[in-house]
Amino acid sequence: MDIGFIGLGEMGGAMAERALKAGHTVRVWNRSRDKTRALADQGASVVDTPEQAFAGDAAFSMLADDHALRSVLVDGGLLKHAPKGLVHVNMATISAALALELAELHAQHGVAYVAAPVLGRPDVAAAGKLNILAAGASESIDRVQPVLDALGQKTWRVGSEPQHANVLKLAANFMLASAIESFGEAAALVSGHGIESQTLLDVITNSLFPGPVYQGYGKMIAERRYEPALFKARLGLKDVRLAIAAGDAVNVPLPVASVVRDNLVDALAHGDGEKDFAVLGQVAARRAGRES
Amino acid sequence: MDIGFIGLGEMGGAMAERALKAGHTVRVWNRSRDKTRALADQGASVVDTPEQAFAGDAAFSMLADDHALRSVLVDGGLLKHAPKGLVHVNMATISAALALELAELHAQHGVAYVAAPVLGRPDVAAAGKLNILAAGASESIDRVQPVLDALGQKTWRVGSEPQHANVLKLAANFMLASAIESFGEAAALVSGHGIESQTLLDVITNSLFPGPVYQGYGKMIAERRYEPALFKARLGLKDVRLAIAAGDAVNVPLPVASVVRDNLVDALAHGDGEKDFAVLGQVAARRAGRES
Amino acid sequence: MDIGFIGLGEMGGAMAERALKAGHTVRVWNRSRDKTRALADQGASVVDTPEQAFAGDAAFSMLADDHALRSVLVDGGLLKHAPKGLVHVNMATISAALALELAELHAQHGVAYVAAPVLGRPDVAAAGKLNILAAGASESIDRVQPVLDALGQKTWRVGSEPQHANVLKLAANFMLASAIESFGEAAALVSGHGIESQTLLDVITNSLFPGPVYQGYGKMIAERRYEPALFKARLGLKDVRLAIAAGDAVNVPLPVASVVRDNLVDALAHGDGEKDFAVLGQVAARRAGRES
Amino acid sequence: MDIGFIGLGEMGGAMAERALKAGHTVRVWNRSRDKTRALADQGASVVDTPEQAFAGDAAFSMLADDHALRSVLVDGGLLKHAPKGLVHVNMATISAALALELAELHAQHGVAYVAAPVLGRPDVAAAGKLNILAAGASESIDRVQPVLDALGQKTWRVGSEPQHANVLKLAANFMLASAIESFGEAAALVSGHGIESQTLLDVITNSLFPGPVYQGYGKMIAERRYEPALFKARLGLKDVRLAIAAGDAVNVPLPVASVVRDNLVDALAHGDGEKDFAVLGQVAARRAGRES
Repeated sequence: MDIGFIGLGEMGGAMAERALKAGHTVRVWNRSRDKTRALADQGASVVDTPEQAFAGDAAFSMLADDHALRSVLVDGGLLKHAPKGLVHVNMATISAALALELAELHAQHGVAYVAAPVLGRPDVAAAGKLNILAAGASESIDRVQPVLDALGQKTWRVGSEPQHANVLKLAANFMLASAIESFGEAAALVSGHGIESQTLLDVITNSLFPGPVYQGYGKMIAERRYEPALFKARLGLKDVRLAIAAGDAVNVPLPVASVVRDNLVDALAHGDGEKDFAVLGQVAARRAGRES
Repeated sequence: MDIGFIGLGEMGGAMAERALKAGHTVRVWNRSRDKTRALADQGASVVDTPEQAFAGDAAFSMLADDHALRSVLVDGGLLKHAPKGLVHVNMATISAALALELAELHAQHGVAYVAAPVLGRPDVAAAGKLNILAAGASESIDRVQPVLDALGQKTWRVGSEPQHANVLKLAANFMLASAIESFGEAAALVSGHGIESQTLLDVITNSLFPGPVYQGYGKMIAERRYEPALFKARLGLKDVRLAIAAGDAVNVPLPVASVVRDNLVDALAHGDGEKDFAVLGQVAARRAGRES
Repeated sequence: MDIGFIGLGEMGGAMAERALKAGHTVRVWNRSRDKTRALADQGASVVDTPEQAFAGDAAFSMLADDHALRSVLVDGGLLKHAPKGLVHVNMATISAALALELAELHAQHGVAYVAAPVLGRPDVAAAGKLNILAAGASESIDRVQPVLDALGQKTWRVGSEPQHANVLKLAANFMLASAIESFGEAAALVSGHGIESQTLLDVITNSLFPGPVYQGYGKMIAERRYEPALFKARLGLKDVRLAIAAGDAVNVPLPVASVVRDNLVDALAHGDGEKDFAVLGQVAARRAGRES
Repeated sequence: MDIGFIGLGEMGGAMAERALKAGHTVRVWNRSRDKTRALADQGASVVDTPEQAFAGDAAFSMLADDHALRSVLVDGGLLKHAPKGLVHVNMATISAALALELAELHAQHGVAYVAAPVLGRPDVAAAGKLNILAAGASESIDRVQPVLDALGQKTWRVGSEPQHANVLKLAANFMLASAIESFGEAAALVSGHGIESQTLLDVITNSLFPGPVYQGYGKMIAERRYEPALFKARLGLKDVRLAIAAGDAVNVPLPVASVVRDNLVDALAHGDGEKDFAVLGQVAARRAGRES
């Protein structure tokens, strides 16, 4: 396919590269141009404006947050000038409120819109193993499926309303945060009783809790090793806040999210925002007087 | 082996039956005698006193709670009269405080002691698929391993201090409770946005959170079906309280456990103590005004 | 003094009326004009634009929230066109972030700026008994003190940085919310034991907790009477969210604020957003299964 | 009156002294005898057994906790041997469960029973300014009123069921803990914004929150001075746990109590159990990275 890609951070860059490797024609744009070089070396056309990326068969976006997305897409008038027939696939994790607004704006401007946030970190993106939550018109998703297949191991079609994909992503990330937090607390508990937290990790990952979350984040907590960060605490906090805001929008209290949020603020207060999300384990240990 | 078994509730009964089926000689005792009949039909010898069960190669106990265990074992003088050389395998979930006390008491009375709490509900026990967390002297565990093999799919040897097995069990159950709670909140969140919670469940159990907990309890929450109970909310609350108490003993705050505890009290206040532990999902839905 | 007043809701209207009664010349402006009539009858000049109100010696504003204030003051260009020498006294409860931004904007535009949020509800405002937290340049506060004296029983001068007054107001409102919540929980506790919550209220207001908060909100909780609302739960939630956001800005976790926030969301989910802030007591009672 | 007094810790000692000074005849007993000397110097008769103190018109007890009270009163057989017609006035803070059990036990043994826990610390007790929450038969309270008048500034008669006084005391102490916690969080919030917490304290104690709690504990927090302890964090935690247990007994969730509890455990984990209850402010500051 002939596609554009805007937003080439760690996630977006890895995704654009996957698309290139799968043989798609890719125009790339990024606010800071230096991130485009490696992709140019692999055959991407670097364009000067987001408008030039919003052309061809489909445009993919992976911008950092609500602010960046709104700035480029809405304030910048990108949607207004998008060619009719283009499919815009927005893969970023954004707020439920902006998700709903964007769904409406695309409809107004006659641009086909697919929300397709992903589960997985940059290393997973680089391996093309993301889980993609896609929502929008079936025919729109059908059209971009070849690219999605290059980016992820599976595309979950979660309905026709784009914003639903975003809410599901926030719910999944909230569960991720909760799992990290609860293992962090449990690890502090067993450590307090003189038991290696690795022992707990071995038991639970081989019984109740198999799967990548407990294995990956749990290992960092058991080893008290929070760098290098695979997913930063600061970004985890951003996502937990978005989950809480999504709850607020429909009056759903999320008390565990509130606890995780407070503990992530505690982490940032101790200068650990750039460490891995698993640093919640350090907060639990510190509160138990067992930090060092 | 020639063993005794005391405490024949849903869990204990299923476990004693597994031991019988594996060819062991089993003397059984239970406070209320009617629970012994089915086992007698399968070849168990029903004895009149716990002392008679505490004989042979090893004695297994699966009493309901701290109170029952203390009453029979300590106040009843059972330990004092236990034959030298007997191995006592205590498989119940008990408090960290009693666990430590029992370890010391057994040592004083010269009775070999293995703490071997289990992960799994009665249906898992009946299938002999429990995960057993065993701690104590290696040679003691070695001696009872043939019986443990009949009861569980795996025995995790978690050290030589018996009480460590109990703390690990409480930590694992706390994590179970947290996982149910967080899915309950997440389900309320997506429902609030008009999304089927089954969709969320499909996505997460096939990506971040495979394994029996999310699949089993998550399904009950997605279907809003909390009966029949596989593990009662009332008993779940008991275990969460024990986890908090174990934290107290070594000054480890467990803020997510506190949230779960409060929500389980909320469940009991609404008459749902006999429903499944998954009823935490109903508490989350009720708080969001979406109880139906 | 010759002053303008913009924002004539329940609070602002009562305050403008106090200024009129004290003999000041008052130009009033409100987005919806019908709120100006009663003030016109009492001698206020109704003006057509906020610019006309931003003239004379000083301009007072009491707009509903960040959005309204930003819309009129910043987006509407009001600050840009304000006459040099004017003192702007902003009495609304706004976010710490906007407070800081406004302090800087006023300085840029050479407009003297006093932040003067108030403690007290509309009935207190009508009686001229507000507590006013004023921050800004001393000479600016000096100039508007005659009007502040008409509005409040006391002006607390809390420093020269305007945004400090706003943060203090948010901290005070958070404490108010916490006090209501804790009495609500305590009332549910004693009720659960068959004790009238009025008994608890009598004891504590005559010993540990004298003062208007426990007496006022406590009475509503003890009587389970949440209407008419003197301060709406919906607005209380807005303020608690602002307190949490103010904590976020400087990495201060506020776990009790998180609990109160979740319980207010629970209240809104049950349709009680327009009831009094004291409805937190009903949330506590409902969670204890004792709602009716 | 001719009274006995058992339990002469900081509180009990001060109270017995007040009774002596008011002219009552006082027999005193304490497990550790050295605490009786100062009272002997002031005219108390020191007796060798609690039985000797449980004689005359009335016996007052102020033992440290459930365990001490149960040990002396129940296990020690004191109640069984108490003379008919004696009024026992139990002034200790005990669990709701033991309170109910004691009410029943006294009735069985024909001993008149008044529960009369107090609000106030040792300094308040020494000044005779306690608030006493008394429950029991009116005629029994009438009989001991002369002594209560010597101990407190006011006796609140809160009904005929003794255990109600104990629940009210726990509810009041929970509110005390909540108030300290919320000021601690608010102080951390304003400090984070560069505002002296003393400024916040001045404003709120002169407006929303007059009274001794905010003034006393708030001052310690504003000054970050937690020693000498007037009421130890460790004892505060004991009382918060009793409040939670009282909620459990009747299925009332107390989410703010849970937060306070976790924060007090955090304090103990940092070696601050012997510091003042106000040390909750230090926990809040530490979590905000502002401990110094």
